Amino acid sequence: MEAVLSAGAGESTRPTRPTQPLIVLIEQALRDFFSSRADTIQAVGSGYATAVAALESFVLRGGKRVRPAFAWTGWLGAGADPQGPQAPAALRTAAALELVQACALIHDDIIDASTTRRGFPTVHVEFAKQHSAQGWSGGSAEFGNAVAVLLGDLALAWADDMVRDSGLDRDTLARISPVWSAMRTEVLGGQFLDISNEVRADESVASALQVNRYKTAAYTIERPLHLGAVMAGADSSLVDAYRRFGTDVGIAFQLRDDLLGVFGDPDVTGKPSGDDLRAGKRTVLFAVALRRADETDPTAATLLRESIGTDLSEAQVERLRSVITDLGAVDDAERRIAELTDSALAALDTSTATEEGKRLLREMAIAATRRDA
Amino acid sequence: MEAVLSAGAGESTRPTRPTQPLIVLIEQALRDFFSSRADTIQAVGSGYATAVAALESFVLRGGKRVRPAFAWTGWLGAGADPQGPQAPAALRTAAALELVQACALIHDDIIDASTTRRGFPTVHVEFAKQHSAQGWSGGSAEFGNAVAVLLGDLALAWADDMVRDSGLDRDTLARISPVWSAMRTEVLGGQFLDISNEVRADESVASALQVNRYKTAAYTIERPLHLGAVMAGADSSLVDAYRRFGTDVGIAFQLRDDLLGVFGDPDVTGKPSGDDLRAGKRTVLFAVALRRADETDPTAATLLRESIGTDLSEAQVERLRSVITDLGAVDDAERRIAELTDSALAALDTSTATEEGKRLLREMAIAATRRDA
Repeated sequence: MEAVLSAGAGESTRPTRPTQPLIVLIEQALRDFFSSRADTIQAVGSGYATAVAALESFVLRGGKRVRPAFAWTGWLGAGADPQGPQAPAALRTAAALELVQACALIHDDIIDASTTRRGFPTVHVEFAKQHSAQGWSGGSAEFGNAVAVLLGDLALAWADDMVRDSGLDRDTLARISPVWSAMRTEVLGGQFLDISNEVRADESVASALQVNRYKTAAYTIERPLHLGAVMAGADSSLVDAYRRFGTDVGIAFQLRDDLLGVFGDPDVTGKPSGDDLRAGKRTVLFAVALRRADETDPTAATLLRESIGTDLSEAQVERLRSVITDLGAVDDAERRIAELTDSALAALDTSTATEEGKRLLREMAIAATRRDA
Repeated sequence: MEAVLSAGAGESTRPTRPTQPLIVLIEQALRDFFSSRADTIQAVGSGYATAVAALESFVLRGGKRVRPAFAWTGWLGAGADPQGPQAPAALRTAAALELVQACALIHDDIIDASTTRRGFPTVHVEFAKQHSAQGWSGGSAEFGNAVAVLLGDLALAWADDMVRDSGLDRDTLARISPVWSAMRTEVLGGQFLDISNEVRADESVASALQVNRYKTAAYTIERPLHLGAVMAGADSSLVDAYRRFGTDVGIAFQLRDDLLGVFGDPDVTGKPSGDDLRAGKRTVLFAVALRRADETDPTAATLLRESIGTDLSEAQVERLRSVITDLGAVDDAERRIAELTDSALAALDTSTATEEGKRLLREMAIAATRRDA
């Protein structure tokens, strides 16, 4: 994905583009935003400043910046001028999506009790370690969770501040407001459905697709594109085309993630092999396998139900991989991904997006659905 | 406080006032906001709708609406017309403070592992109970915390949405933006300092005052008043006067809370007697007592240090009350409250607020600093 972004708005042969890769510009916008808050934070207290510095490190530490990239490219594809006076404000608004994402990741890591993120300790673990190292009173885990709850809240509040202070004119701010609002409400809903399906051991494909739709597709691709389009003043026909494209690519993106979560190479994904199976994730892949097993292979169904969410050995994961493949669930996922990608590209091709926008979004769609990490 | 609000903007003898008590109007605005989100929520999923209904019940279930009342009264006192075309938008903006507060309470209750709030189970306990009653898989406490984290996030995101959708004109929205932003950043900082001081067993009066300032005074009174003033287009002289008044009343309000947390009548406060001592709260009252004990009574100092944050018997609480009183910490708190109230009222009296605004704010200041619950 990063190569695409870099090609998309980076050191390309076109002289009208920003001379730096988009990812660098996004991170600079985030860095500038944190700087703009330094005085307020310092006035509250130096301890707060230290905690906020940890948040800043978290935000700036890697990540593919997928959401800002789709927002920015959606804006470009709607005919906006990347050298025009609105470009810095559009970039800042796109970058603000990373602050929503920081909240989502920090709070998700508390919810999932995850210990690492992007190769570093998660925020709650980082502060629990600090508590422990300093020999402070009370529970270290509780302190870590408390700080992580507050820093996630701060990231969410600052996402709004960053949009309001982006420099977008007031008409544009008013226009993007319903999109921004829907995006946050939907992703929180998707996260709620995800944990709710997990504890209820919901086995339906429809429920898994609903989580995919709201937790990933709408939040990661559809709404960022929608935001970019509305920011550029696009008409409803382009908005509709972007949203069809974004929903389809977004769902396909998550289906690819489902496959990687079971079949991915740990050396490439950076996660343990079969991680989703051990974590008990109710993915579309798993739901399809289970439905097919119920129809054709009761023994496989029992195995799947008894294995999901348990501490599986490598051999057990390997066995489940064979079962899931033999049930045709992998073929089903690949077919869905192919169909969704085709319909997404068809919506894009017949849209009124600029030729350059179409080219970039096509590349991004393919990168998002054919990736191996 | 409620009587004041009701007198302030309720069924008074003045025909130019809304005919309903302010608190009712605020709750109606919140109810209307939740209704406006029903379709989006239902589209994500019926389970989400059920969870959001629990959030709505939480928001509408009591609370004194102190922050909206100060915002609204600040707006009135700056000469705005409660019958004018901007009034409904100003009311909605004031009411949005209750959504920030919902996030603060829900997340604070997770952090403090509190089990009851406003006479009901806290949100995380409510969902833990649901999990347990349904016999779902995984840990009930973890599920409860997860849902409460997400619902707090939603309340925080919706607070912003409610301001943006309040109907305030764009100039006014742009004007209040820095105040709204500072308020959220400060309260999260105050909460961070509070937990940080507690685990570090910070004993300084200055640290306790800093928490008081940002967690309570700025968030509860200074910034709501500031918001109201800016919303009404007040000049910087009135803003400055309001902020001095609000900071002083706010600090005094929390000092009164400190006294009630140790000396309050459980039948009136609704909290166990001596609750702050058992919870290990690092209040200004406790810090002053400890400083005086260090200066004059080493035995008392040892007792205070060994008792704070432990599971004290009623007799032990009674003993600590005597010690804190004998050290002069209660007199010190009462003196601070009186001085702060005097300086607040002086700032108000010499301000350019309307006579009616002065009258209302004077009543509210007295109610906030002389209350017994």
